[in-house]
Amino acid sequence: MSPLHPGPQGAVGLFADLYELTMAAAFHAEGVRGQATFDLFVRSLPEGRNFLVACGVEQAVTGLTEWIYTPVELGYLESLGLFESAFLDELARLRFTGTVRAVPEGDVVFAGEPILTVTAPMVEAQLVETYLLNVIGFQTMVASKAARVALAAQGRPFVDFSARRDHGADAAFYAARAAYVGGASGTSLVSAGCAFGLPVVGTMAHSYVMAHDDERSAFQAFLQAFPGAVLLIDTYDTVEGARRVVEVVRELPPGTPRPSGVRLDSGDLSVLSRQVRAVLDEGGCPDVQILASGDLDEHRVDELVREGAPIDSFGVGTRMGTSADHPYLGVVYKLVEENGEPKVKLAPGKRTLPGRKQVHRVEEGGEARRDVVCRVDEPAPPHSRPLLAPVIDHGRRVLPPADLNAARARREAAVASLPAELRDLTPAEQPYPVEVSPALEALAALAEGRADTRSQALGGGAPAGSF
Amino acid sequence: MSPLHPGPQGAVGLFADLYELTMAAAFHAEGVRGQATFDLFVRSLPEGRNFLVACGVEQAVTGLTEWIYTPVELGYLESLGLFESAFLDELARLRFTGTVRAVPEGDVVFAGEPILTVTAPMVEAQLVETYLLNVIGFQTMVASKAARVALAAQGRPFVDFSARRDHGADAAFYAARAAYVGGASGTSLVSAGCAFGLPVVGTMAHSYVMAHDDERSAFQAFLQAFPGAVLLIDTYDTVEGARRVVEVVRELPPGTPRPSGVRLDSGDLSVLSRQVRAVLDEGGCPDVQILASGDLDEHRVDELVREGAPIDSFGVGTRMGTSADHPYLGVVYKLVEENGEPKVKLAPGKRTLPGRKQVHRVEEGGEARRDVVCRVDEPAPPHSRPLLAPVIDHGRRVLPPADLNAARARREAAVASLPAELRDLTPAEQPYPVEVSPALEALAALAEGRADTRSQALGGGAPAGSF
Repeated sequence: MSPLHPGPQGAVGLFADLYELTMAAAFHAEGVRGQATFDLFVRSLPEGRNFLVACGVEQAVTGLTEWIYTPVELGYLESLGLFESAFLDELARLRFTGTVRAVPEGDVVFAGEPILTVTAPMVEAQLVETYLLNVIGFQTMVASKAARVALAAQGRPFVDFSARRDHGADAAFYAARAAYVGGASGTSLVSAGCAFGLPVVGTMAHSYVMAHDDERSAFQAFLQAFPGAVLLIDTYDTVEGARRVVEVVRELPPGTPRPSGVRLDSGDLSVLSRQVRAVLDEGGCPDVQILASGDLDEHRVDELVREGAPIDSFGVGTRMGTSADHPYLGVVYKLVEENGEPKVKLAPGKRTLPGRKQVHRVEEGGEARRDVVCRVDEPAPPHSRPLLAPVIDHGRRVLPPADLNAARARREAAVASLPAELRDLTPAEQPYPVEVSPALEALAALAEGRADTRSQALGGGAPAGSF
Repeated sequence: MSPLHPGPQGAVGLFADLYELTMAAAFHAEGVRGQATFDLFVRSLPEGRNFLVACGVEQAVTGLTEWIYTPVELGYLESLGLFESAFLDELARLRFTGTVRAVPEGDVVFAGEPILTVTAPMVEAQLVETYLLNVIGFQTMVASKAARVALAAQGRPFVDFSARRDHGADAAFYAARAAYVGGASGTSLVSAGCAFGLPVVGTMAHSYVMAHDDERSAFQAFLQAFPGAVLLIDTYDTVEGARRVVEVVRELPPGTPRPSGVRLDSGDLSVLSRQVRAVLDEGGCPDVQILASGDLDEHRVDELVREGAPIDSFGVGTRMGTSADHPYLGVVYKLVEENGEPKVKLAPGKRTLPGRKQVHRVEEGGEARRDVVCRVDEPAPPHSRPLLAPVIDHGRRVLPPADLNAARARREAAVASLPAELRDLTPAEQPYPVEVSPALEALAALAEGRADTRSQALGGGAPAGSF
């Protein structure tokens, strides 16, 4: 880290909207020292999505447990001329001492359910808002998108090819991770493979073919360097490319591994895959698989699978890595309790349920029936499991080391347990039932009454909140 | 950097799709040592966009000049069991020795024009593909989006509020930078302000208001900590919030700075801004400005400005930082020359112009008339300026230190010089003219003939390329 480039992977403490710091300073000046609880959640699912896949908790925990202000950051903040030295001294000493509970990575969540909750001294809880929204929102968005591709692929493997179009290097890095949790079998991005232990995959580019005198010599050269490689066959003409593959395979020295597959990256993948399959089969290459890529998303994969296209696996890129149809998730971070007092916001259409909570998923016969958002101290409904578990306890990480294979398996099981209608790519007519427990409703009524009285006393209108 | 987390801000050499490394290894094994030239460009503008604003060159140059493989990366690559030790030894020694030319940050570019070109030994040129596409594509996308917001705002300031919804911490960091080049006056993201010297801005959150007994005491406390702050007035009722501001201002001790503004973050901003303006004016606060935020993009800003809403400045977030209507840019990186021989790709709809190029912008009377894509060695058309300038010369950075204010001014001048129709938010009926010089067309015909002959000789169909 240099002073000129602290960057998001430098000290994390400046990864905050300025108002987090000014509000924290105001709380500090006011002597606000009590515990506050914030919930991180979405108010509604993106249109057409039936569920979300929680992801990014690992990075959230890492950031919070490393939340510091070094002299570089403090010097910068001082230079703004906004902050009193007493507050900057507080920041110099500050470590995150709060408690965080979260839905495990890979589990399924719905609108109105906390994905993560923070209970901490107000100053700390406020400072981490921007960071938490950013890391949880982004990875949850990508994992949720990938889970839809997984549904469409119906068991066929698909891999993440999004790196070149993701929103910067870091986005590509974490998109690969989230896509894996969501169901991808691997990624083309080597840095992500290295860091997260993901399978890395790749074929060849058109430029490689063009850099050779002809396709045949390109294939030969590549197979010599990488026996068993996947060959890209659409640089000039896809079906002719398949014929070249057959010729090259015939000429391979005995005992040399044959190409494991061919990649189609353009054109009508349904038609071309059939033609290519025929050429390969007739040419004695039934073992050479077909990988399709090029502007794919869950809808295009679904079409290809339904049409019976003989495609063995998919490379899914841009539209998955950027969640192109919904390129952001409306995650919010709302104050729900302060010093034990439940808090609500009354802005129209933006009701917030007060208090510390637990979400219980009622499961019967291996199927998820409904979720119940409860007060944290309520008894669990029968046949349910709690979704929120501690990941940081008074500043200490209690989240086990990340296990992406476990998260991936959790996603698979959680999605499989959903009602069939929710496992479709089209919007479910009957959204998954998310109930609010009577005890939590009672608390909300109490808090809203209080806030309403306050608002009325101030001359404000009646609350128009709806969940 | 730790072995467990090399990450995109660790050694950059692994930020590559696996195929860049396997192709580089194959080139290495084949003894391909000649110079290759690749162009980075978009084939077409995103629908509805009339121009792009080049951005991200600084990060591209930094990455390329720091392109290394340390023992950590080499050990990982070796563990994949794909690469021969001779290639890994080559990587251990590898530095980027090529020459890169680029359009300066902030200048305007169109489809079919190289935004950046690389001439380097084939292995090096191939390895950097994913990285260059990623960094140039992302920042160019955001700067281009921000430039549209700037057009809509018609001189009113707007600031980047996108951090919480961008695609990870790094995306938010660079989105703030690109938005500034595109015309934003500042950002809410403190880390970006610190690293790039951008003005940082912020107000307060609903949670701050809710954490106090009432709005009035929240406003009072915040103004005490931050005299002259902007107050958020829509937590309970926007117009009532404005009345609270007037009351609080009346009670301010003499000589205390008044709040510089109020922020509206929900509801009908056009109607509410008028009501709030009236309350403030009647209450003796004509100097208190109105900042509007909440789901804004260039279209919504345009509406508000056209309706004459008394809004002094805008906070634009998610839709700008994620370029939500077009959340990716179809940048490609294509081989155009190898060892002095022009190269083309013939896949349908994907014509590539061969050879090393320069783009000349013909300007008359302060207005950009047309661009001409030429061979690099052609004389410039009259009244034109070349767009591509060296940024790395044989591995050595020749790009001057980044000056974001200069880039911002360049964007302002470049956009202002466009024909009026292109400075509208709606798609221009007449796209900006981008011509191909006769000499370059002749070279293309030559190269296409050769590639076509090759394709025909291989039994392939006729090329169906179109630019």
